Amino acid sequence: MIQLIALFQQPADPAEFEKSYWETHVLLAKKIPGVISLEVSKILPGRDTPAKYYQMAILSFADKDSFKTAMKSPENAEAGANLMSFAAGLVEFHTAEKVAV
Amino acid sequence: MIQLIALFQQPADPAEFEKSYWETHVLLAKKIPGVISLEVSKILPGRDTPAKYYQMAILSFADKDSFKTAMKSPENAEAGANLMSFAAGLVEFHTAEKVAV
Repeated sequence: MIQLIALFQQPADPAEFEKSYWETHVLLAKKIPGVISLEVSKILPGRDTPAKYYQMAILSFADKDSFKTAMKSPENAEAGANLMSFAAGLVEFHTAEKVAV
Repeated sequence: MIQLIALFQQPADPAEFEKSYWETHVLLAKKIPGVISLEVSKILPGRDTPAKYYQMAILSFADKDSFKTAMKSPENAEAGANLMSFAAGLVEFHTAEKVAV
């Protein structure tokens, strides 16, 4: 399983971020071909320190080939452009391979 | 679902890290009470840049109460001490709440 992990820093306006994320981005991300699942987690603030990240999202794909196909798709370009319209500078991406535990 | 997310930076000796992680730490982490799943992903290096992280691990718990109980358990103390014996300075933890997508 190949994962596209998106780590988001704290947005200046969380309510605006949430609105854009759920009302536009999630719908577009789900249309990317080969997406098996989209998992979203909210990072909880620590007791003493502000959270380094605000949110993590994981898009999962069956294998490297389907991931490559997905990344080249027009649906991915559209989802990426949408994300940059409200989360540019807030998001970092990591690609990962899930291992059996 | 409450998640304990561990992000690991690149170890100096990956083979040594892998040996300690899989032969000692995973066994101890699985014994922490209330652990529903342990998911491990290897971060893939980017085309042009070294990966910011080496590995991500997610321990999942049913809810905040079972997470709190787990964190106070002797099994968690043992797993944590073990982790610090080979990954001190390499690992950062984030607590997160998974949201429905």
